[in-house]
Parts: sequence; C-alpha cells; structure tokens
Amino acid sequence: MEGVRVRRVIQCVPNFSEGRRTEIVERIVDAIKSAAPVKVIDYSMDPDHNRSVITFLGEPEDIRVSILAGVRLAIDLIDLNKHEGEHPRIGAADVIPVVPIVGVSMEEAVQLGHAIGRDIAEELEVPVYYYEECALRDRCKNLADIRKGGFEALKVGGLVGDRAPDVGPSRVHPTAGATVVGARGPLIAYNVNLATDDVAVARRIAAKIRALRDSGQGMAGVKAIGVYLKSRGIAQVSTNITRPHLIGLWEVYSFVEREARAEGVEVLESELIGSLRLEAVVDALRSAIKCENLTQTRVIEHQLLPW
Amino acid sequence: MEGVRVRRVIQCVPNFSEGRRTEIVERIVDAIKSAAPVKVIDYSMDPDHNRSVITFLGEPEDIRVSILAGVRLAIDLIDLNKHEGEHPRIGAADVIPVVPIVGVSMEEAVQLGHAIGRDIAEELEVPVYYYEECALRDRCKNLADIRKGGFEALKVGGLVGDRAPDVGPSRVHPTAGATVVGARGPLIAYNVNLATDDVAVARRIAAKIRALRDSGQGMAGVKAIGVYLKSRGIAQVSTNITRPHLIGLWEVYSFVEREARAEGVEVLESELIGSLRLEAVVDALRSAIKCENLTQTRVIEHQLLPW
Repeated sequence: MEGVRVRRVIQCVPNFSEGRRTEIVERIVDAIKSAAPVKVIDYSMDPDHNRSVITFLGEPEDIRVSILAGVRLAIDLIDLNKHEGEHPRIGAADVIPVVPIVGVSMEEAVQLGHAIGRDIAEELEVPVYYYEECALRDRCKNLADIRKGGFEALKVGGLVGDRAPDVGPSRVHPTAGATVVGARGPLIAYNVNLATDDVAVARRIAAKIRALRDSGQGMAGVKAIGVYLKSRGIAQVSTNITRPHLIGLWEVYSFVEREARAEGVEVLESELIGSLRLEAVVDALRSAIKCENLTQTRVIEHQLLPW
Repeated sequence: MEGVRVRRVIQCVPNFSEGRRTEIVERIVDAIKSAAPVKVIDYSMDPDHNRSVITFLGEPEDIRVSILAGVRLAIDLIDLNKHEGEHPRIGAADVIPVVPIVGVSMEEAVQLGHAIGRDIAEELEVPVYYYEECALRDRCKNLADIRKGGFEALKVGGLVGDRAPDVGPSRVHPTAGATVVGARGPLIAYNVNLATDDVAVARRIAAKIRALRDSGQGMAGVKAIGVYLKSRGIAQVSTNITRPHLIGLWEVYSFVEREARAEGVEVLESELIGSLRLEAVVDALRSAIKCENLTQTRVIEHQLLPW
C-alpha cells in the first residue's frame, strides 16, 4: 500500500436559472469541463423549479477558471426576464457555492469564493453578493434574504442601501441579474415526494420541520419548503440539509414518512440533487439499520483513498 | 485532477478461533502488519463465538507473506483442544477468504488462494481445504460441509475419503486442526440482535430466511442462523450476505424487523463484522429511503478514488 498523497480538492455547485432547455445546460457543462481540468460529477435539471445544478471537483485554481467560463456562457444564454419557475432566484448564474473537500481549509475556500466573485464582477459586469463564509456583512449571511423578491425586486428597487452588492456594478445586469457567491460546508439537497397532489400536506410537514428547527427541538440545520411539482402532479417536501452530521438523510426521510402517514399519505420516493459525502451516506444507513459499528473505516473504498 | 493509476488490491479476511483473549488476537494482528506492507482495516472479537475476524488489504504478493505470518503465530498460540464457542470451526486459522477488490481478476485471487494454501500446508504442516472459487472438487464448494462436526469430527474420523485435504498432510494438526482457504466475491457478515432472550424467535426468523432463499422466492444468497449470545443474554439472527447486489443490508434488516415485530419483539440493534464495499452501503441506503437516484457516482469520495 502506498503512502499519503497530498491533494487539494474543492467542490463547486453552481445553480443556474435554466431547468427546461437541455441543450443550454449541456453547453454550460461543456464550457466548465473544457476550460480547465475539473471533473463534472453530476448535473441535474428541474423543470418545475426551472433550475439546474452542476457539481464539479477540482483544484482551487482550476475551479476558478472553469466557473468563470460557465457563468460567462450562462449570461449569454439565459434571460431572466423570460424566466419562470418555482424556486426563488436573482441571477442567470444564481448562486455559486464552493466547498472545501480535501487538503483545503475553509479560509482558502473563502479566498477562492472572493476571487470568483471579483472575476464575475469585473469581467462579466454582474453585481455579486457574498454569502455564508464569504459574507462581508452580517445581512449577507442568509441566502433567503438576498433572494427576497427575486430578480424582479432587484430591478425595481435598484442596488442601493441594503441591496448594494459586495463587488461589481451597482446596477442589476439587464438579463443576468446578480450572482451570489460563497464558501460553505457540505450541504445535501434532498427532496421527498409524496403520493398526493395536495401541496398543503407537504407545506404542513415543511412547517413542522422549520418549527422544530427554530425551537431547537430537532431538525437542526434543515431548511424545508413544500412545493407542488406541476410536471408530475405531486407534492414535494424540498429540503436542504445543512448540518448533515447532526440531522441527516434518514432523520429527514423518516420524519417526513411518519408525518405524511399521519395524514394518510405515503412517501412515493425521495431524490438527491448533486452529490454528498461518504460520511453522510454511512451516517444515514447507520441510523436506518441501527448499526452503531457501521463507520466509514469499514468501507473498503474509504481505506483506498489517496490521503 | 489526475489520471487513472493502476493498482492491485486484494482483501483478506482470516477467521481465527480465538475471540476471548485480546492479547492473542492483537499479537496475530501485529504479525500480519509487520510481515509486509498491508493495511489492517478492522479486526473484531466475539466472545460467544470465541472467534476473531481480521480484515486487511494489500497487493497479492504482500497478502501472501502477511497471512502466512499470521497463521504461523495463530498455530503457536491457539490450541483447539481447549476451544469452546458457538461457531462451527475446524482450525486455529479456521478459514481464509481472499477477495479481489481493485485491478485483480477472480482468477488471480484463486491463484493467490492456492499459493496461500500450499504455504500453510508445506511450511506449517496443516492440512488445507480449498473452498468457493478455489475449490478443486465439488464437495468443497460449501464451507458448511467441510466444517460439519468441527475439529472434533476430523480428529476422530481422520482425513480420509471425502475428508482428504486438497493439499498438505493427511492427518489433522494436533492443536491447530485444518484450514480452509478460498477466493470469493464480497460477502457481508451481518447480525441483527433482538430485544429478547428467547433464541427460538431468532431461529424461526433465520429458518424463514433460509426457506425463502431455498425456494427462490427472496433472500437470495443470504445464510442465516439463530444464536443465543450468552454474554449479553439476547438472541441474534446471524447472517452472511453473499450476493449483496441482489439482497443487501436493508432487505435483511427490514425483514428481520418485520418478522420480529410479528412476534412482539423489537430489534435492539444490528452489527457488521469486518468491512464492506461502498456499493453495499449505497445500495442499502437507496432502498431504505426509496432514493432511486442515490448512486455511487454521487458520492464525492467515489469520484476521488485513484482509478
């Protein structure tokens, strides 16, 4: 067996405001892949949210080059004035999180986020807000606040006062809006689909999750909304699991299943957006089968990782 | 990101007939570690079974050197005449499976198994049976048949006829018995502990698993027995999952849970022995949370493996 190899890996998970036209998403993926030696490990499109999420890995320097190429093309191809979708958004390249994975500190990820923000602001003339660990001001820490009212609110209100960007022009880009960039820890985007067309059920379950979280009685770090998936005629509890080491996939799934059943509704299936860490998979299965001694170290592939 | 690196990895999972005296198991682990550059990723001791399982990874040539060192020490330290335990066994080094993991074909694993068998037979004068993919004769394919009656039956009956070893002396080693060596695919050793001291419940559930398997109506490749864990005063359904791509951890756990509940008994917990593949973890969680799009490729660590 070989010794430890030093490696530096960042994950970048840009969200673009296009989830219906496959050819546009594929062109953005190609632009990201072609610009530098990064590895695109997943991309998914959601027609109801009209949004796509691309997940890629690479060294920090390569991530910086690739994401700029992707955002440049997205700005060319996506016009927010013609965009309709369930999900709140302010930009063609709506939000760009970077996540330290291996051999990179959060501080380095923050520096990368700031560099990406400056690139977008200066080269593409799109105003940029920094969020999460990249935030320069307290108000920017929460993505929901920045996005409130979406592109339309920014256009009407202008980028003044609380809405002044952290870097870039102080006017909204006429078609591409603005972009949010930040560094954060691992997050799992996870949806549970219900066997009902009654969105009220999903909304009640999401509200219970938020209430538990806000009261500190459970569901720590879980963001949840109930949405109606028009294309499939079903209700969905759409979540972001932001502290997966505390509350993971199994806790969210089993909570939604129990609450839905209490209303006489079954879970149809669940779905992941993007990628997740091995630890999150192992933690969830450990809970599901009550197997305390199921740890990452028992997973052969974990033992074969080059660090 | 870097290109593909060629690597050859075998997993070796020897079972030794000592599960109570920690210092003996630790000395065997040290012997394995010291003899060649292999990586011991797990070892566990079971006092009821009076048995230990060591899991290590390495290149085939290193595995061969390490396992011989471990078996040599086990033969010095373990006397089967003084051994008592739940689990059927015929040797101090009872069974030695080798499993191809990366860059090694089953044929190469079979060759390694045969080389290990010759080493033990010639250098340590212990008779060796080949099983699974290493088997030279049909009767040896099933471990249970070889082990029937254990060390005691071999001593009394002698190694003649059907019991003649595949390689090595045709008399039982006076203290170390005989050893079974073979190559096989991944197997998951998995136990579900019940909140009852009534071993009959565990035995009935195990019998149902075997009946389903033998009738081809489910539980493909699952071996199951019900045992009583004296040290804890509880009943256990002890299984080997030999075709984890067909029936995995979740199917076994949820079957046992359902059957136990039908008898008014809860599952206390479950436990793994040794290691498992990432695929087995992902498959099990996919079933548990009905998440069709949870695949290995979404696991970031999978994307960072060096091949």
